[in-house]
Amino acid sequence: MNSKHYSNIVIGAGSGGMTVAIGLANLGKQVALIEAHHVGGDCTNVGCVPSKTLIHLAADYRPGDSVEAVLAEVTRKRDALREKETEEVKQIENLTFIQGKAAFAGPKQLHVTGPNGDVQALSADTITIATGARPRMLDIPGLSANRLLTNESLFDLTAPPRHLAVIGAGIIAVELAFAFSKLGTQVTLIALDPRVLPTYPLEVSEAIQPELDRRGIVTYYNATSDSYDETTQTLCVRSGEEKFPLESVDKVLLAVGRVRNIDQLNLEKAGIAHDKNGIRVDSFGRTSVPGVYAIGDVTPTSAFTHSANAQGRRVVQRIAFPWLPARGPEPLFPTATFSDPEVATVGLSPKQIAEKCHPELVRRLRIDFKDTDRGYTDGVENGFILVDVVRLTGTILSVTIVGPRASEMISFFTLAISRRISLYQFYRLVYPYPTFSSGILKIADTFMRETLPSLPRELAAYLKYRFAR
Amino acid sequence: MNSKHYSNIVIGAGSGGMTVAIGLANLGKQVALIEAHHVGGDCTNVGCVPSKTLIHLAADYRPGDSVEAVLAEVTRKRDALREKETEEVKQIENLTFIQGKAAFAGPKQLHVTGPNGDVQALSADTITIATGARPRMLDIPGLSANRLLTNESLFDLTAPPRHLAVIGAGIIAVELAFAFSKLGTQVTLIALDPRVLPTYPLEVSEAIQPELDRRGIVTYYNATSDSYDETTQTLCVRSGEEKFPLESVDKVLLAVGRVRNIDQLNLEKAGIAHDKNGIRVDSFGRTSVPGVYAIGDVTPTSAFTHSANAQGRRVVQRIAFPWLPARGPEPLFPTATFSDPEVATVGLSPKQIAEKCHPELVRRLRIDFKDTDRGYTDGVENGFILVDVVRLTGTILSVTIVGPRASEMISFFTLAISRRISLYQFYRLVYPYPTFSSGILKIADTFMRETLPSLPRELAAYLKYRFAR
Repeated sequence: MNSKHYSNIVIGAGSGGMTVAIGLANLGKQVALIEAHHVGGDCTNVGCVPSKTLIHLAADYRPGDSVEAVLAEVTRKRDALREKETEEVKQIENLTFIQGKAAFAGPKQLHVTGPNGDVQALSADTITIATGARPRMLDIPGLSANRLLTNESLFDLTAPPRHLAVIGAGIIAVELAFAFSKLGTQVTLIALDPRVLPTYPLEVSEAIQPELDRRGIVTYYNATSDSYDETTQTLCVRSGEEKFPLESVDKVLLAVGRVRNIDQLNLEKAGIAHDKNGIRVDSFGRTSVPGVYAIGDVTPTSAFTHSANAQGRRVVQRIAFPWLPARGPEPLFPTATFSDPEVATVGLSPKQIAEKCHPELVRRLRIDFKDTDRGYTDGVENGFILVDVVRLTGTILSVTIVGPRASEMISFFTLAISRRISLYQFYRLVYPYPTFSSGILKIADTFMRETLPSLPRELAAYLKYRFAR
Repeated sequence: MNSKHYSNIVIGAGSGGMTVAIGLANLGKQVALIEAHHVGGDCTNVGCVPSKTLIHLAADYRPGDSVEAVLAEVTRKRDALREKETEEVKQIENLTFIQGKAAFAGPKQLHVTGPNGDVQALSADTITIATGARPRMLDIPGLSANRLLTNESLFDLTAPPRHLAVIGAGIIAVELAFAFSKLGTQVTLIALDPRVLPTYPLEVSEAIQPELDRRGIVTYYNATSDSYDETTQTLCVRSGEEKFPLESVDKVLLAVGRVRNIDQLNLEKAGIAHDKNGIRVDSFGRTSVPGVYAIGDVTPTSAFTHSANAQGRRVVQRIAFPWLPARGPEPLFPTATFSDPEVATVGLSPKQIAEKCHPELVRRLRIDFKDTDRGYTDGVENGFILVDVVRLTGTILSVTIVGPRASEMISFFTLAISRRISLYQFYRLVYPYPTFSSGILKIADTFMRETLPSLPRELAAYLKYRFAR
């Protein structure tokens, strides 16, 4: 068996792995980047890039336009970016690209199986695991493989489904349900969850559900897909005791969660601690084995491309500048869902708020876009800014936005939370009129109106509950 | 003549005047609000509200849809909001609404002429002037009044022009040129200015011009509209020595600037200082006469609804809480133009930067959206974030954004500049992927890459030029 040593090895050429490999290479560090499938990982090939292209084209689609042309354009753009990234990664100085599948043979040792089955032994001073995740599969009795789609096969479609059953109610499920519905496909959404986008606050579901309804997307919650009858093309949905036959379903999209790609890594051979939530890491991506890092979907941190990138940047910092103190808070990871309207959040989860603050210390503020001038001109019916703040101080704990441009608006709050800027400061700012961001001023106004006239009471409450736990 | 005294009088029920009147009334202060025309002023009646409704509907318009229905919906929404605001303003406690035209009779005295011609004498402890501005008119020989439009008559159109000549290249001209072009109207833009959106940096014109071209909007710069021939419906455009006959022009939209509504106020009788730039005010809206304030378009400050509102809020503060120190910097006034793509700016003007900083102290950073993943998925060809920062420190001086969601993205920078947050902080933040805001991280990356490896040189340059003037 051939063997070779590199200063640094990165396993997985997805978004996170590329951040680490290219980041290190640009700093003059020698890196080997190992990838079993396509350069670009999920994001370029089966995730953000094709899905956002589809969403963008679907928004402009009108009945009568060719759906086939839309799907072909999605595939073309995906392929073009993949080729460009594959070419680029091979040109980067200090970076060796290795096509193959890696597994640990020891703490800092890997066996890499190439496309021809040849195995080489690699060792390194640092190894970064960035192998990502894959769609969780589900068996639906009677459903043949050629009718079953996941995000990994969806973007190779050349013709639209007539009736698409989407199994799941999470981000991928909802983004694609909206997009295909706009392209004229009949869409039915079936989820075990009790509501759409179940990991977001309830208010989000309450805003997105009427938008699904308005588009004629039929939804079944607390429901499973029991079986499929090929002769009648009927998908049988069960909810409690009731059964619903869905007719003429020609494709079924599975979007029921993700499985971390760690089962074939032989983590045990390296002694890398992990559990059902993935590889255990600190906020700098360090695993239980010194010199071994993990980022992105294999870790318990938020499963977004931008999170993997942010973790990757911190790993580069640790490897390239190890003398820098590993300090500073974990970055804030915003979320964004490109439904219509969009959903974006940043800050503490309800559980984290409950752990940190007495309920009486938290004030919830909400402005609905339909009560703003821009919401009026643009006919926005469902959408809002929801902010949890500490009473009296106006310190922001968490923000949820549902609206046409939520994914861009959220960064204002990421900046504010990370710099501990309170609502008092928002009150002083001027927001262009008429924008959705003008709603931020309304939030600040409400806070001031509720707080200023009763400062003594607010101060007393603050002092009472601030130190209550 | 009837006479009456009020604690506070506000002249003009536009966006700024309403902010002051309602703000004071809600704080329990007695206010009289005088309006000569419609409640809501320009914004509700002939500005932002109908124009943004039109822009929104035009974006969704497809050939074959009824343009008449679009225009009717714009008028309907405008009228509905006007009625609602008119009704609401009459219900507000502590607020007296007076229909009439006000002129000064003394420092704190007004004569108000009602709709029937009856005149009453009003006096007040404080008077706020918020009479706004009107379109500058231009005489085009041969052009009849029924072919001439301004923003004041445009939103009453019931049928689209066949060929609309837009005179001007500023914000109103460009927003409406894009909107009517999308509705199928042939649009020609004629401006004395050398380029489109001439008050913005040159880079903005370079990005917007190809978008005008792409839509077939023909543009003439350094050009005037000489005459109109009614029999052939030909508008004669002259540029230098050359003449261009524009055929089949059925409507001409004048958007060549605004005239402040101060000429009929008898400001001299009150001794209120003013010049060609409007009524002189400090950053709290105080005029040369104690107790008399002025806000919005009558002042030299930026002529946006949000600016008038912000000034109004400060006037409310001065009147309601006079013991509060009148301190604090003038707020940052962002700009937003709802062209396609949008344009937004915030921060110092090039002139202000030149006054404040040695040129060697300023570093210009630019990221084009076409080089970002979201720009790629959405096919954005012209658009960018342009940031001027102080070298070494990364303190932001000014920001210009051209892009599909620029008007929402700009508030991130308003917050950053007002809190003196530098690019180093931007580098630590996580931006949702794939958003246009991800470009902010690229800006920060570029700055870090250019600054960190040459810190001693950057520090030397900073110290040399920081105190150079």
